[in-house]
Amino acid sequence: MSLGGDSFESGGPGAHKPPSRSGGRSGRRAKRTQVKTGHGRPYITRNLPPLNLLSEESLVRIEDTADTILAEIGIEFRDDPAALELWRKAGAELDGVRVRFPKGMVQDVLKTAPRQFTQHARNPANNVEIGGNNVVFAPSYGSPFVMDFEEGRRYGTIEDFRNFIKLAQSSPWLHHSGGTICEPVDVPVNKRHLDMVYAHISLSDRPFLGSVTAEERAEDSVEMARIAFGRDFVEDHCVIMGNVNVNSPLVWDGTMTKVVRAYARANQGSVLVPFILGGAMGPVTVAGAIAQAHAETLAGCALAQLERPGAPVIYGNFLSSMSLRSGSPTFGTPEPASGSLVVGQLARRQNLPLRCAGNFTTSKLADAHAMNEGTMSMLSAIHCGANFVLHSAGFLDGLLSMSYEKFMMDADFCGALHTYLDGVVVDDNSLAIDAFREVGPGNHFFGCGHTMRNYETAFFDASVADNDPYETWQENGSLDAATRANKAWKEALANFEAPPLDPGTDEALREFVERKKAATEDRWH
Amino acid sequence: MSLGGDSFESGGPGAHKPPSRSGGRSGRRAKRTQVKTGHGRPYITRNLPPLNLLSEESLVRIEDTADTILAEIGIEFRDDPAALELWRKAGAELDGVRVRFPKGMVQDVLKTAPRQFTQHARNPANNVEIGGNNVVFAPSYGSPFVMDFEEGRRYGTIEDFRNFIKLAQSSPWLHHSGGTICEPVDVPVNKRHLDMVYAHISLSDRPFLGSVTAEERAEDSVEMARIAFGRDFVEDHCVIMGNVNVNSPLVWDGTMTKVVRAYARANQGSVLVPFILGGAMGPVTVAGAIAQAHAETLAGCALAQLERPGAPVIYGNFLSSMSLRSGSPTFGTPEPASGSLVVGQLARRQNLPLRCAGNFTTSKLADAHAMNEGTMSMLSAIHCGANFVLHSAGFLDGLLSMSYEKFMMDADFCGALHTYLDGVVVDDNSLAIDAFREVGPGNHFFGCGHTMRNYETAFFDASVADNDPYETWQENGSLDAATRANKAWKEALANFEAPPLDPGTDEALREFVERKKAATEDRWH
Repeated sequence: MSLGGDSFESGGPGAHKPPSRSGGRSGRRAKRTQVKTGHGRPYITRNLPPLNLLSEESLVRIEDTADTILAEIGIEFRDDPAALELWRKAGAELDGVRVRFPKGMVQDVLKTAPRQFTQHARNPANNVEIGGNNVVFAPSYGSPFVMDFEEGRRYGTIEDFRNFIKLAQSSPWLHHSGGTICEPVDVPVNKRHLDMVYAHISLSDRPFLGSVTAEERAEDSVEMARIAFGRDFVEDHCVIMGNVNVNSPLVWDGTMTKVVRAYARANQGSVLVPFILGGAMGPVTVAGAIAQAHAETLAGCALAQLERPGAPVIYGNFLSSMSLRSGSPTFGTPEPASGSLVVGQLARRQNLPLRCAGNFTTSKLADAHAMNEGTMSMLSAIHCGANFVLHSAGFLDGLLSMSYEKFMMDADFCGALHTYLDGVVVDDNSLAIDAFREVGPGNHFFGCGHTMRNYETAFFDASVADNDPYETWQENGSLDAATRANKAWKEALANFEAPPLDPGTDEALREFVERKKAATEDRWH
Repeated sequence: MSLGGDSFESGGPGAHKPPSRSGGRSGRRAKRTQVKTGHGRPYITRNLPPLNLLSEESLVRIEDTADTILAEIGIEFRDDPAALELWRKAGAELDGVRVRFPKGMVQDVLKTAPRQFTQHARNPANNVEIGGNNVVFAPSYGSPFVMDFEEGRRYGTIEDFRNFIKLAQSSPWLHHSGGTICEPVDVPVNKRHLDMVYAHISLSDRPFLGSVTAEERAEDSVEMARIAFGRDFVEDHCVIMGNVNVNSPLVWDGTMTKVVRAYARANQGSVLVPFILGGAMGPVTVAGAIAQAHAETLAGCALAQLERPGAPVIYGNFLSSMSLRSGSPTFGTPEPASGSLVVGQLARRQNLPLRCAGNFTTSKLADAHAMNEGTMSMLSAIHCGANFVLHSAGFLDGLLSMSYEKFMMDADFCGALHTYLDGVVVDDNSLAIDAFREVGPGNHFFGCGHTMRNYETAFFDASVADNDPYETWQENGSLDAATRANKAWKEALANFEAPPLDPGTDEALREFVERKKAATEDRWH
């Protein structure tokens, strides 16, 4: 029976329950169904400033190190003679496939890169602004496996792929349909991209990513976008992007650079992402890994500008760490979180839109470990000022699995982040001086005018959360979050309705896919 | 077989495993046992700046609202005539128990409050600095129930209480033993504090909190501290604190103010904590709730200064929100997270040490929901610049339960936050230019000199995390985080050794407890 000290036994929130507002139990039940849990938006414009970790002096040291890497050690551009030729013409020094960049050259080339751009959706209400103070959430990307609560881990299929597009499209809290949400391993490797792009266009009306596994697949992706958006429109507007990885350390593979150049040639976007596991593909110390990544992504962004000045590019980063117990990569750990803050500072100084971090974890289940790491990592994306947050939902097992249950929890968390990024409103209404005058000391605010005017939009309420009292939760089966999320994704899939698509466009897309599939043999590796 | 786009099928971290460093399998096993997972410190001095959300103009508006509340509406100080007399002498305007404060008066009184102070531990190596850039983690506080994986929810006992002290003391990542970690309901209400304070002193050698449930219990707590630390030492040094709640809105109960004055009289510390559930004990809008809390905590801190100028005080805050579906309080939601950032700005402008946020959740299990909310909330404590983070570990079910399993996960997360708060080191070693020169494009960093010099201290590795590959995890029983945490707390309790305590001191403490217990009848409510 403690009286103070946060105890619940007197005066804590357990002792306070809002009274029924209208007509007892049935009125309360009716009210529940009307409650607003917030509304999605096509993208977020943040009121929360990013968190700047390092001083000007330290940032300059990292930039100087990146400049030294570019000028002295250089980057290899393999299997893409056209890229080498672009570099030669731009004034770089070539030594076989090794390219060295005179100080300041890469930054000069980058002056044509937009600091912010629109990626158009086939429903214009869902266009997203990428860059500046804007934040766009997209599902996770690239897992060979999928997982759910009942069946455990298995290879992804095109049905899983479609399911995740449906789940993303159903969520008010994601803004972008993503790309290779999971690998559909039941479709031949050389034809997969056709089914994936068709699924994005037909099941979602949000922006999406195209294929990056080969130049002709990137070109097919752009061609399908032209069918959906109109050829002229695509020439002048970004409607599709490719998300490409550096082969760190300091190697850009020809497959990737040809894809970057294909998207840029079509005036479409690229996300250029070093993926550094410290101690493996880069130095084991965070500052060095960031300097390396800075050099790698700037070189990639600059190549896109050489191919077509003004083509949209996103400065990408994907920091990870390593478990010294197991030798495995780790995610959602503190070093990538603080490192991402530095990456954000560097991208802003470069005036480039940023992709960084996401809802990462090494956990093999959608459990407490998963959401501890995922939340840490996702908040680092928020605090570092990321503009395009790939891997916002579903990431499990170090990206090896796409999880149905975690997808639902993560999407809910994206909802919470809408509110978090809104910051705190300070105005006459929110300061509520009238409420203090009305209520006074020792009384409650339940029924006061200010509460009645504001309560419906006051608080975000996550759909998978269970905020009932313990006894009610117990009566309802003592379900854990993963079990509730399992029900939620099944319900969302059962209720899914595809957004309308013009039948002529649909027909043209199907015809393109069929023709392309018929033109070559299946390849499975 | 995608080539890029973060896929694991080529070039992702799945394809990279560090080679054995010394002598194959057995060498690797030997190395694992030596791995450093980091070291605890008596407290953290942060290199990560706090995140400032609001502009000067908005902060001034909140402060002006708080000033208006203090001057116009006032605060009731109930059942404590001595407190009213202190206010009267200081120039406040009294109307019964309602106290109104002329503008600027409270701030004037607060000029004697220290902006930073040391709370001493009986092991001086564990002294903590509270205020400034320092961060101190303490266990959760005040739950009537405890929970574990096997037995579920039940009322807390003195054995549970002792167990949690042992678990905290065993963790390198907590700095403070806390206070009423759980309510030991098997001990009479009027004697509980004696067993609790004795348990803190005998089972831990870190700083701790005393009783706040009655003035004489606060005085008993201080008396026991005098036995442990020496009467003269306590006169000049803070060795114990009381954590007290405002009875929001705008009421300070006499029980609380007498406790605050008792600690201040003994030159000991107080944490003054408004606990506002928006829409119930304060306005449903965040800015108004913060303005109210600001007024309440400043008045409490000022009262301690009137009792004894210079007595340590901590500006406290505990923001919460409400589920409009269930009418229940909610924790770990976005409004308290962004609100806490504002609270941090206000406390810094007041030059007072801050207690704010913690690892909060409404979840009834140590599941994904718990750690999503807990991580969000704990990071808000970190980003808002909290100096004393009560509820760092164990908080479950809206503070109704103290969870054994969540305690272990939360303590691990406190470990991660040590690294996060260290920020990113930028120096010649971390920039690693020698490593780039040694390795060059396309090679790996595993065996390079820079990696060998740095890898052992490179990355934080949480003890409850499982970062093994999926197959290894499966071979080891496919355990979820809660199951691993269950093993971990049992192991920690089995291995616990109490820190040495001078036998004479121990004898004197036991004698004090026995004498006090014998002097009054048991009371159970």
